Amino acid sequence: MLTLTHAGDDPRPPRIARTVAALVCWGVLLAAMPALHAEDGYELWLRYAPAVVADPDSHGPGIAQLVAGSESPVQAATRRELLRGLQALSGVAPVGADTVTEDAALLVGTPASSSQIARLGLDLEGLGREGYRIRSAIVDGHATTVVAANDDIGVLYGAFHLLRLLQTGQPLADLDIREAPRLQVRVLNHWDDLDRYVERGYSGQSIWDWHRLPGWLDPRYTDYARANASIGINGAVLNNVNANADVLTPMYLEKVAAIAGVLRPYGMKVYLSARFSAPMQIGGLATADPVDPAVQAWWRAKADEIYSAIPDFGGFLVKANSEGQPGPQDYGRSHADGANMLADALAPHGGIVMWRAFVYSDEEPVDRARQAYNEFVPLDGRFRDNVLVQVKNGPIDFQPREPFHPLFGAMPRTPLMMEFQITKEYLGFSTHLAYTGPLYEEVLRADTHVQGPGSSVARVIDGSLHGHALTGIAGVANIGSDRNWSGSHFDQANWYAFGRLAWNPELSSRDIAVEWTRMTFSNDAAVVEPVVGMMMASREAVVDYTGALGLHHLMGRGHHYGPGPWVDGGPRADWTSVYFHRADRNGIGFDRTRRGSDAVSQYAAPVAGVFDDVAQTPEELLLWFHHVPWDHPMRSGRRLWDELVFRYDRGVDAVRDMRAAWSGLDGRIDAGRHAQVAAFLAIQQDEAQWWRDASVAYFQSISGMPLPAGAAPPPHALEHYKTLEFPHAPGDTK
Amino acid sequence: MLTLTHAGDDPRPPRIARTVAALVCWGVLLAAMPALHAEDGYELWLRYAPAVVADPDSHGPGIAQLVAGSESPVQAATRRELLRGLQALSGVAPVGADTVTEDAALLVGTPASSSQIARLGLDLEGLGREGYRIRSAIVDGHATTVVAANDDIGVLYGAFHLLRLLQTGQPLADLDIREAPRLQVRVLNHWDDLDRYVERGYSGQSIWDWHRLPGWLDPRYTDYARANASIGINGAVLNNVNANADVLTPMYLEKVAAIAGVLRPYGMKVYLSARFSAPMQIGGLATADPVDPAVQAWWRAKADEIYSAIPDFGGFLVKANSEGQPGPQDYGRSHADGANMLADALAPHGGIVMWRAFVYSDEEPVDRARQAYNEFVPLDGRFRDNVLVQVKNGPIDFQPREPFHPLFGAMPRTPLMMEFQITKEYLGFSTHLAYTGPLYEEVLRADTHVQGPGSSVARVIDGSLHGHALTGIAGVANIGSDRNWSGSHFDQANWYAFGRLAWNPELSSRDIAVEWTRMTFSNDAAVVEPVVGMMMASREAVVDYTGALGLHHLMGRGHHYGPGPWVDGGPRADWTSVYFHRADRNGIGFDRTRRGSDAVSQYAAPVAGVFDDVAQTPEELLLWFHHVPWDHPMRSGRRLWDELVFRYDRGVDAVRDMRAAWSGLDGRIDAGRHAQVAAFLAIQQDEAQWWRDASVAYFQSISGMPLPAGAAPPPHALEHYKTLEFPHAPGDTK
Repeated sequence: MLTLTHAGDDPRPPRIARTVAALVCWGVLLAAMPALHAEDGYELWLRYAPAVVADPDSHGPGIAQLVAGSESPVQAATRRELLRGLQALSGVAPVGADTVTEDAALLVGTPASSSQIARLGLDLEGLGREGYRIRSAIVDGHATTVVAANDDIGVLYGAFHLLRLLQTGQPLADLDIREAPRLQVRVLNHWDDLDRYVERGYSGQSIWDWHRLPGWLDPRYTDYARANASIGINGAVLNNVNANADVLTPMYLEKVAAIAGVLRPYGMKVYLSARFSAPMQIGGLATADPVDPAVQAWWRAKADEIYSAIPDFGGFLVKANSEGQPGPQDYGRSHADGANMLADALAPHGGIVMWRAFVYSDEEPVDRARQAYNEFVPLDGRFRDNVLVQVKNGPIDFQPREPFHPLFGAMPRTPLMMEFQITKEYLGFSTHLAYTGPLYEEVLRADTHVQGPGSSVARVIDGSLHGHALTGIAGVANIGSDRNWSGSHFDQANWYAFGRLAWNPELSSRDIAVEWTRMTFSNDAAVVEPVVGMMMASREAVVDYTGALGLHHLMGRGHHYGPGPWVDGGPRADWTSVYFHRADRNGIGFDRTRRGSDAVSQYAAPVAGVFDDVAQTPEELLLWFHHVPWDHPMRSGRRLWDELVFRYDRGVDAVRDMRAAWSGLDGRIDAGRHAQVAAFLAIQQDEAQWWRDASVAYFQSISGMPLPAGAAPPPHALEHYKTLEFPHAPGDTK
Repeated sequence: MLTLTHAGDDPRPPRIARTVAALVCWGVLLAAMPALHAEDGYELWLRYAPAVVADPDSHGPGIAQLVAGSESPVQAATRRELLRGLQALSGVAPVGADTVTEDAALLVGTPASSSQIARLGLDLEGLGREGYRIRSAIVDGHATTVVAANDDIGVLYGAFHLLRLLQTGQPLADLDIREAPRLQVRVLNHWDDLDRYVERGYSGQSIWDWHRLPGWLDPRYTDYARANASIGINGAVLNNVNANADVLTPMYLEKVAAIAGVLRPYGMKVYLSARFSAPMQIGGLATADPVDPAVQAWWRAKADEIYSAIPDFGGFLVKANSEGQPGPQDYGRSHADGANMLADALAPHGGIVMWRAFVYSDEEPVDRARQAYNEFVPLDGRFRDNVLVQVKNGPIDFQPREPFHPLFGAMPRTPLMMEFQITKEYLGFSTHLAYTGPLYEEVLRADTHVQGPGSSVARVIDGSLHGHALTGIAGVANIGSDRNWSGSHFDQANWYAFGRLAWNPELSSRDIAVEWTRMTFSNDAAVVEPVVGMMMASREAVVDYTGALGLHHLMGRGHHYGPGPWVDGGPRADWTSVYFHRADRNGIGFDRTRRGSDAVSQYAAPVAGVFDDVAQTPEELLLWFHHVPWDHPMRSGRRLWDELVFRYDRGVDAVRDMRAAWSGLDGRIDAGRHAQVAAFLAIQQDEAQWWRDASVAYFQSISGMPLPAGAAPPPHALEHYKTLEFPHAPGDTK
């Protein structure tokens, strides 16, 4: 087996030289070319690095013959990807053929595109357009791997699945795989402005180069589509939910259509965030009132115009009457009135509306965690069939940990879609290693109990609990112009995990981490185990060093960079930290029990009962639901204050452990990626320590309690931490 | 010779396969690795692509032995670059040695670093720190190429020169090269904000990743330094002249110091744009008055602080009392008072002040072209020795063509430095191919006549005309986070040409284009000739289709994208187009003669006489200096109006010719770069046509004259062009 060694000063690391020498000996030079690139993360999990196996024979004969059509654009994309992947992975270019005539063949297609597949008579029922089967079969007397589906796009997804098997070192033998997505609409939400600024983006500019579109189609768009298709993401909302109406003008629609043309062969639809007041901004109307016939006509005409350029346009995402955005309430209408008006314009073309439930009133003094529920539950059943209500995973805003949003399960007559955040607005931007797979998994597996035990959030959004046909999930993208797409190598895993869970919300985040690590770094167990260990511990580390036990919304104001538990004042109370932690001399935490804001009552009775009872509430959500004294006894035997400090220190220690684990991989990971991750972990450790020190200094100033024995006093006085300013931190709302 | 073929669908083009196969046969596999990368422009002109020569023997034995020290960081960088370049170029890794012991050796160093060089007794007088000699010599009996200098940095520059000889296919025989820079301070000005926005940037974000600094030193910083060192650029002003004072705070100075550490081994100093009011913004003072002792003390302390972190800090660039920036005039003081106060703070540390002359009053009704002269000439002789006054090449603002700035030659007691714009604010952003080498050359060769004929602008700025020791030149960078650095492949040539002319202002822009093309694309004459032809015609094409014959400042408001000859109104007259072209029913042009604004009198008498006389004024500057009737007879025999339309059409035709020439290179240029240039040329042709049509429509509406025979009428009415809006065009001032 090849050993990777550190590159040192020489720009071409010795490992490459050795790999090449070895491959030349194996006579597979041509296929190995892509692996010769210095690794910079651009290839994502589609590196197709040649599997370095001790005993090649154990993996069977590989693929010698490729039977794949190229009549449709999707077929052509599938064939191109298979050629690229198989050549690079196996070192042997498969021979293309029209029909299977040899052993070790790969036959991909639909019953319509391939008579050999049709004759196999595979059961493809219930797979829909996007599902597929992968079977080991004898085709006309030859041992063949078959990827079959009802539609070209299913074949493409199956092809990527097959490539994943090869990438992760699994043998192509006795395969009988049947896969179909559990959710229908699996989309990325790009919070990208038209000037390429990305709100809450930490990986460069928007990949959408609006100014040079449609004349220049950056090859990156194709690679973006490939990456998404490889994990089943089938749509993208191209622009920020804080939307600019200009994207709906003819000049921009031409650009949008150009992007749609690149994404289409990969099964991706484009969607746009629609500014509710667009009829006024770009339509010359005096109102955007959804019951006004002129407004309705304007949106119908706009939809017609869009579909004439983009026949498979997906639809609109809308943030309305939220954080200053315009919406139907400006005219005394409801969210349903607004959503339905747009839905009616899109319906003739098959488009959908994704209407966000992330709303909280400017005026209501009620607990912000309660407001979306209060506004939306009364509207249940009043939305058109082509409307999805898009709900963030928790009731506040993508915190490192939140309870699941009480709307899940509470609107049985309305299809709800999940909104996860992939970009790490609250989890350390792109420099902190925080694998969000466990966060997503935790929410998806949470049991709402709305129809008794087993009423998981996953079953709410996949439609099975309440019998909805239209289902969906959205992830706020972490994708930008940085060479490695996501700002850090490990943040690619969060994009990957979102896609895999969107396809099947019951996958395990650990299994996903293993899969991703094998494809992204190495199949070497000496790499996979420590990397997966780091990943699986990482999110909890962030929870610990930014504020554990249910604390939330403690970050710096505006940019959300670094600790700000002291943040108060400003335009509204529920944009401050003190509103959420409510720490005082006597205790800490937001009382959301029946004796407090009563947010607990928004959950089904069994859940509400648990959250209402301080003794039953899981400790990781304790201060979310309860205001408790500083000396509240914890399960560890510590009192609350000591436990809190313990958690802060534990978080810092966990980062130190991640650094040590990564340091141990020096020489097993290519030098370029190893160096960047190592540098980022060093930043993370400094910033984890800063979070811990600033938070401990602040809460100690409130609690007045001594540090527990052994806990280091913060090196600076609280005032030092409070005076730090970061006016140019990335990602802030403009 | 290898023929390049188009890649088609296959992501690995056949040419690579064939190149590899050939190289394997030649037994030079390892060294050829870098050439296997898909070309994406990241490597700039330092691709070190193996020279494909019909007869390798004609090029001599190459370099077999490398004798290069690595004791200092600069030496180590030099040795690293030579190893990288020689391996990649020749296919053979030279053997490292402590002394020359074989033929075909390369010996690099200083008399201090190498006793063999000391013993050669080469005349290194007058070369200064940065100059070098490259000589073919016999060293201890062995045929050797020697790169020698007084200082390590001179050796590095010489090493890059040697690599350039190899890259451009020149034999290493009978060399006797003696080079030293004609200008002392050769700096890039980055108009980069601390949030990574680049003002007038068309190539992505700032490469300075402030948020992740100092923890993460992007390898791009090193490649940036390599590229600059390869052309002799020895400094960078890291932040926008519209400066934010935060860059002078300890948090940012730590980041600046980290960048300085990366650039230092490549002979580059860092400079900062200093906001004049920084003592108020970050110093807590109530004033920034330069005669206030507290203000002076603050700047002295700030300089001390900077130099304690960055001992070789270069100094400050200042934009003061210009376009809303604070400055000494806010306190009734002069530019000299402001510059000297900063100069005094920097002097103990050897730092300099670059004080910009780009000023024009908010109030004065005088011709904007005259204002810098009016303000600065009276200050001649009043600046400290360590102050350079930085003057834009022309009196308005980086237009496609301007006469040279009248300040050149008009301040004999003050060293003036040139400010060129490399980023193409007014020459089509990054999508238009416009090689700016001829523009720079035209200005540098312009004869000011201030000390009789031969008083070229080059001799003003190189200090020879007026005997200045301190000399400099600045280029406003076109560098960003785009993979190819400059937004387009051809815009790399403008960075390159700036650097080469900064080293020697008397180089020919055509020679530079040849050199750049050979290194960037190919040594194949079938590539070099058409590419250089395109480049040399390109700037004149832009002049023609945006407004020839001395017209200027006709672009869209704010973003400066596209035509806007109709722009009027707004906050100030001299930000409009109509102020500059002054077209009316009777004629067009700005009368700057003695009968008009008298701007001509700011030039030396012989020049003023020419510009004052409509018959003597070069036609390409006619409307800069004269208001003439539409039927003014031109040398072509056409009347002015017809000539103007002819030039617009000629510009569009020239772009069409460039497209055709580029199209003919399909197969000779790698597919990736060929495709992007082709797409950009298509955009350029569309936009050239738009400039032509909109401008012709507008000026026809003023002149009321019929189009000349054969000229196509604009396809839209003028109103159409006037209503086009581009609110998200890149690069606008924030």
